Order: sequence, then structure tokens, then C-alpha cells
Amino acid sequence: MNYDAILNKIKPTKEEFSRSLKIANDIIKYLNEIPNDEGIVSKAVLVGSVAKKTFLSGQSDIDIFISFPQETSPDYLEEKGLYLAYKASEKFNGISYKNYASHPYLISEINGFKVDFVPCYQMNEGSKIKSAVDRTVLHTEYIKKNLKKHDEVLLLKRFMNKTKTYGSENKTGGFAGYLCELLIIKYGTFENLLKNASNWKYGTKIDLESYKTSNQFNDPLIVIDPTDKNRNVSAALRLDIYSKFINSARNYLESSNEDKIKYFEDLNKNISLKAIKKQFKNRGSKTLLISFEVPEIILDSLHPQLKKTLESICEKLEEEDFSVFKYDYWTNEKDLAIFLIEMTTHTLNNIKVHYGPKIFSKKACINFQKIHGIKNCYTLNDYLVKDSNRKFKTCEEYIKYVLNKKNSQDIKIGKNIKDHLIETYQINDLEDYLDNISKNNEFIQFLDDYLNPGQYQKR
Amino acid sequence: MNYDAILNKIKPTKEEFSRSLKIANDIIKYLNEIPNDEGIVSKAVLVGSVAKKTFLSGQSDIDIFISFPQETSPDYLEEKGLYLAYKASEKFNGISYKNYASHPYLISEINGFKVDFVPCYQMNEGSKIKSAVDRTVLHTEYIKKNLKKHDEVLLLKRFMNKTKTYGSENKTGGFAGYLCELLIIKYGTFENLLKNASNWKYGTKIDLESYKTSNQFNDPLIVIDPTDKNRNVSAALRLDIYSKFINSARNYLESSNEDKIKYFEDLNKNISLKAIKKQFKNRGSKTLLISFEVPEIILDSLHPQLKKTLESICEKLEEEDFSVFKYDYWTNEKDLAIFLIEMTTHTLNNIKVHYGPKIFSKKACINFQKIHGIKNCYTLNDYLVKDSNRKFKTCEEYIKYVLNKKNSQDIKIGKNIKDHLIETYQINDLEDYLDNISKNNEFIQFLDDYLNPGQYQKR
Repeated sequence: MNYDAILNKIKPTKEEFSRSLKIANDIIKYLNEIPNDEGIVSKAVLVGSVAKKTFLSGQSDIDIFISFPQETSPDYLEEKGLYLAYKASEKFNGISYKNYASHPYLISEINGFKVDFVPCYQMNEGSKIKSAVDRTVLHTEYIKKNLKKHDEVLLLKRFMNKTKTYGSENKTGGFAGYLCELLIIKYGTFENLLKNASNWKYGTKIDLESYKTSNQFNDPLIVIDPTDKNRNVSAALRLDIYSKFINSARNYLESSNEDKIKYFEDLNKNISLKAIKKQFKNRGSKTLLISFEVPEIILDSLHPQLKKTLESICEKLEEEDFSVFKYDYWTNEKDLAIFLIEMTTHTLNNIKVHYGPKIFSKKACINFQKIHGIKNCYTLNDYLVKDSNRKFKTCEEYIKYVLNKKNSQDIKIGKNIKDHLIETYQINDLEDYLDNISKNNEFIQFLDDYLNPGQYQKR
Repeated sequence: MNYDAILNKIKPTKEEFSRSLKIANDIIKYLNEIPNDEGIVSKAVLVGSVAKKTFLSGQSDIDIFISFPQETSPDYLEEKGLYLAYKASEKFNGISYKNYASHPYLISEINGFKVDFVPCYQMNEGSKIKSAVDRTVLHTEYIKKNLKKHDEVLLLKRFMNKTKTYGSENKTGGFAGYLCELLIIKYGTFENLLKNASNWKYGTKIDLESYKTSNQFNDPLIVIDPTDKNRNVSAALRLDIYSKFINSARNYLESSNEDKIKYFEDLNKNISLKAIKKQFKNRGSKTLLISFEVPEIILDSLHPQLKKTLESICEKLEEEDFSVFKYDYWTNEKDLAIFLIEMTTHTLNNIKVHYGPKIFSKKACINFQKIHGIKNCYTLNDYLVKDSNRKFKTCEEYIKYVLNKKNSQDIKIGKNIKDHLIETYQINDLEDYLDNISKNNEFIQFLDDYLNPGQYQKR
């Protein structure tokens, strides 16, 4: 397979390379001059995909880390780091705003480039990590030194982008850029990586520097960090995304060259609201939507909180004997989120068995009978039980019950979204909801993905 | 508590005792004279509750065992044993019919008494058991020698009768007569037994002869047979009946004397068809009846086969994602049986996930995709799966599917009832069925017991 045509599209031009490097170097030069003037001991370095020359055309975000000596206090580091960042941003006429990862950092748009200014601690080999970003400098150095085939990384990143397996943020749970680079160092080429990936098992181990420390991990994929032998680079890779990548690799390898090219492009989707309505109708499931406002919080918090809350609601529905077929959520990542819950069964009979103690616990049994009345209790196998009326005969009834300030402790709700959810939620039948929305918005895209869960992993 | 009034009712009169003993002894005398004449070496002995003086008034069934030397062949034993039995039955103008337990035996009605003639092998201590009935002679001897308080056994048997825990046949799974007698030997009195039983645990051990062999058993109750140290007399006692007895004991002990007397009487039930209909309606469950003809087979086979078949149908309904609330069966023990299946949920959506192999089994995955089409397959966690349409959207659909000669291998059906079930079954909604039956038949009793599962264990 000849990848030239694809690389022509995705590889930055020489001009794009040099433009981004020039901006980056100008800023760094400026930053490294201020401290000398003002007595701040820090050093700015270029990290990330621009430094490593592994960015895709049009995605040349510039990551500048401003590093301070190990003995610097966190407060000083934050104050002076941001101060320098603001100053540089101003100097280069940037439009900036503060953001938070584990620590605050500054994002600025400078000359059409997105530039991240991140305060961090200087790391030497063997230094203790003080903040999660500190490693980035070491990672950049390692890749700059060891990566030979940059084009193969570009192919891999693009392939993962289009098969929805790229990105280590919580929303995705996929492969980080650094992980992609290490995989290419390991396997040499994109194609050879895919061939190996098609045989990956649970717990496949990659140990580039032969640290032999992989036995401490129990993750789907274990890639020992060359800069830290006690770290698994792919610890955040979720099992479902790992599986998707393996499946994508197999599907790709079995495709014709003509189809292979399509794996580097967006899916050719032809979504019709009418078709989506029909597909849902054919499933014959009661499908509920819970839509609510969400606060402005960082996405790496928003997504896990939405996921956790939805999972907790569905678990409780199952505990109440309702049967959930599938569920998913969507958010515009600004102010709106929607839980989708599709039921296998959504109505129940009126009666259930309320379990008491085992019959062999005499005191507990006597107590149970006192509370519930001897006439109502009976033995079921070796339990003392009673029949009781169900509180909830439909799943809506339960959801309305639990999304209430008084009862919401029954489920686990993400702390930042709790108040918004309880105060603003609305329940709709999916069918009713679809009758009242505009034709082609993002939510419809989400529904199409929901109905066709494997579509990105094949062409 | 004074039990005189109760004993007055349940204890056989002196006359009843002597009448039954006289008949028994006459028959035995006759039986032991024939063989001498005809060269058959056998010995008739009286066993069972008449021999042990532990029968309840009106229940003086006479058990006569005709024992043959250990070296006798099974065929000879059966032929000559039944020959002698027929002969004795004729002599005493009995109306007899052959029956089967583990071996054939003769039941005869003689002078208003039910007399069982059972051929067996002579047992001495240490002899090997050749047939299950051989032990009975040893049991009878042990009880005759060791039981002092016969009245206490009568109270216990009556109590168990009325709390539905007596009887070791498969239908009941409760306490055998011999077990009752051993319990009274152990605990001295009925009341003391109940006090102890109220504290019984899973695996309570009783070892009258201190054989110390109880560790080999894992049963709810372990009572080492004084005549065989490697046998648990209560091996056939089901966990649910054991629990019922413990609960009955506690309820009894907490009752007033006035209420205690009621435990020795039938429940004062006032069954109304209308009330039963209303109770079912309130439960809001879809409740199905599968009624069918049953062949004439011994009850100890019929009941387990009905139970097993019903359990298998309900298990499969659950596998098909239907949810069964409770189930039970009733039979007139002649020609009709009815399965009752009460559903928590009886309708489903149209779609289900069809699981394929784990994604890590490459060959199996490629095969799965070949069979089902790559477009239809996707990963779910670490499985390759596909969506498929449900075959059965209501529980009736599944039952009709499986109760068909072609598909019946999907469930476990008792071999003797299989053809009858498949050829004669009818499915009805309980509500419809109740609209078309006469007011007070046995089936209505069964429904009342179904709706009030603990009613016999309390007063």
C-alpha cells in the first residue's frame, strides 16, 4: 500500500512546519529573557507534537512549558508561571484565557496558532514527579531522540482519529499522542503496528527499554514509559477503545487498497431523521431522554460525571427490576446534556419479594416479623421474606423519584452537575422528542452513532 | 402447656391399637406358615408406625416386610415375595393392587386397614443394603428398643402434618416418620424439640450413637442413622421445608396456649373465588397456566418430573430476558397437571445483543464477522457482538415455541410426561381460566396456598 496520497493531505507542508517552529522559538526566546531581567529563575521549553514533529496538518498547537527548579513552592510556580505566560501572550498580541488541568495554565491564540503556556517543575532522570505535566518534557526529549519515522506516526494518528480511538482525555479513553509515537518506535511502521495489534490480547506488554517492570500492571495494554519504569503509558486506555482499535486494525488489514484509503477520511454518512426514527421504532424499545443544563466545567470533569451519573441511574433501574437494554449520553460541552436510556422492559407487575434475614438468624427473624407482622412473613428457601407492593411500576416513575433532592442520595451524581440535573431535567420519550427537533444537529449525529455502534471501525 | 386434649383426639384408642396389631399378627402368622409348607425360606415381620406404636389415630397403615436371605436372587425375591403377598391378601379377603417403590410391592385393603406387603432382604447389623427398604426392619427395631415417649412423637407428627412439613416423599421433601422418632429420642419432648429447632442452623448435627461421621454430609440437617453411621436420615429434607419447620417452631413457641392448639388442627380457611381473583388482579402480573394431561405413574416420579420441567421452562424464560416472578404446579395426581407461571415482565423490546467471541480470539472473530457480515458486527467492551431481532417478544410465544416436538430439546422435560405435555397442553391466562371453573375445587385450594405461601406455618 502506497501512502503518499494520504500523507500529502495530512502532513504539514515545510512552510507550516517552519512557521509554527518560528513562532514557538520567538516566544521561548522572549520568555527566557524576561526572568533574567526580573530575577525569576525559570526556563521555557517547547514540548508536544510541534517539538516532536508529529502533528497533523492544521493541528499545530504549540505547547510551551515554563519550568521552575524543584525547590520552587507551588504558589510561586503558579503565580510567576502565569505572570510570564500573560506577559508573553501580550507581547505577541495573543488573545488568552486561563484554563485548568491539574494546575492552571494559559491558552492564547497567537498569529492563528493555539499556544498553551504550562508552568511545571524541571525534571531530570530520576527526579520525583511533582505534577502530572512534569513528565511531558522528558517524553518530548525521548521522542525527539528515538523516533525516526515521523510519517508513520501521522498515519497512525489520522487512522485513530477516523476510527474514534485517538485521544486520552476522559471523554474518549483512547490512545494518547505519546503512546502512538512509542508504538511506532516499537513496530517501525503503521502497517506493521496494525498487523501486531490484530493479535493483541488482554494485557499485551511493550517494554522498549527492557525495564521488566510490567508485572505490576493489570491493564488491557501495558506500555512501560521509557522515562519512568513504574508507569504504564496506556493506563488510561479503556478496554472498549482498546477492543475497537484491535477490531479496526483487523478490518483495515482485510480491506482492499481502495477501501483502506477510506479509513483516513471521515465516514461517508448520510443521516436522515426519518431513517433514525424508523430504526428506533423497529427496535420496539421504550427509549427515554433526560435532558438538563450543565454548568461550565472542564470537559475532563464533565464527561466522567455524566458517565458516572447515567451508569448509576441505570444500575438502580436494574435493581428495581427494570431491564435496561443500552444507554449513552450526549452533551454539547457547553450548557446541555442528554441521557438516553433504552429499555428492554419498562413496566413491571405490582408485587415484589422483600427479603429479610436468613431463617437461621433467629433474633433478626423475630425482629423482621415484629416489624412487618407475622401474618405477612413467610420463608422462601432459607430466607424470611414478605411480599410488598412495588413503589415504581414504570421506569419514568423511578427516575422522577430519584431525581429529586430528597431521594438523590440513592444514586451517585457527579457533584458539579447535581444541582443542575435535579433542577432543570426533563424526561421525554425519544419519539416525541424527535418530532420536535430540527433536522441535522449534533444530537442527530449522536443518535446515528448510537444506532450504529461499530460504524467508525469499518469502511 | 397441657396436651391431653390434643392427644385425646390424635392418639389411637386401646381398641384401635389392639385391632391393628391383631390383624397384623394374624397375617404375619399366616405368612410365616406358608413358606414352611412350600419350601420358600422367608420371614414376615411387622415394621413401620404400627410396629413402633407411633401412628396417629385413623392412620394405622400396616407395613409387613417379607424378608429373604441375603443370597436370594432379586428375581426370586420379587416373584416369591409377591406370590406370598397375594396369597395372604386373598386369605384375608383383601382388595389388592401392585405398586412400585424401588421394587414392586403389594398394597391390600384388609378389614378396613391398608396393608403393604414389601419383599426385602434380611438385614443384620453390618450387612450391605441391597434395596432401599431393607433398612426399615432395622429402623423399626431401633425405635422399638429406644423410644420411650410415644405420645411426643404423635404430637410432633400432627404438628408437622398441619404445618405442611411432614412426609419424606418427593412431593413434600419434609420430615420422615423415622426422623420424627429420632428427634424425640434426642430431645425428649415435642416442646423441647421445638425449642431446640428454633435455634437450628444450616448443617445442625444430631448423632445419637456418637458415630462422629457427620462431617461427610453437607445438608441442611444432619441426623446420623443409628443403624448406619454413613447415612444421613434427613438427606431428603429440602432446605425450604427445613426453614418452614424452624419458622413454625418459632411461631408456635411465641403463641398463646389458645393459639397453640390451633397448630394441631387444619387451617381455618375461608376461600372465596372472588377474593382469589381480586388478589391476583392486585398483583398486576401476567399469570399463565399451562394445563395438560399426565400419565399414570407413581407419585414419587410424577412430582419431580413436573417440578423439573416447570423449573426448566422458567429458567429458559429468564434466559430469553423475560422475568419470572414466581411459579408453582398443581396436579390432581391422576390425569391432570397445571403449571402456574407468574411474570414480573412478560413483553420485551424487539432487539437484543447477540454475543460473539472475545475480541482477543482473532480467528473466532473473523469467523463471526464472516457469518454475520462485517457491517453488522461491533465491539461491546471486549466482545465482538451483533444486534439481532428477538424471536420471542411475549412469554406465550416462547412457551408455544418450546412445547413443540421439534424444539423441546431446549428444555428438560420429565421423560414420562413429555409426550402428554407436548400433545395436550393448553395455555390460558389465569384470569380467563378462573372465569370458567367451578367454585371450590382443589385447584382453588392450590391458588390460595400460592397466594399465601406461609399460611400453614402460623395460626
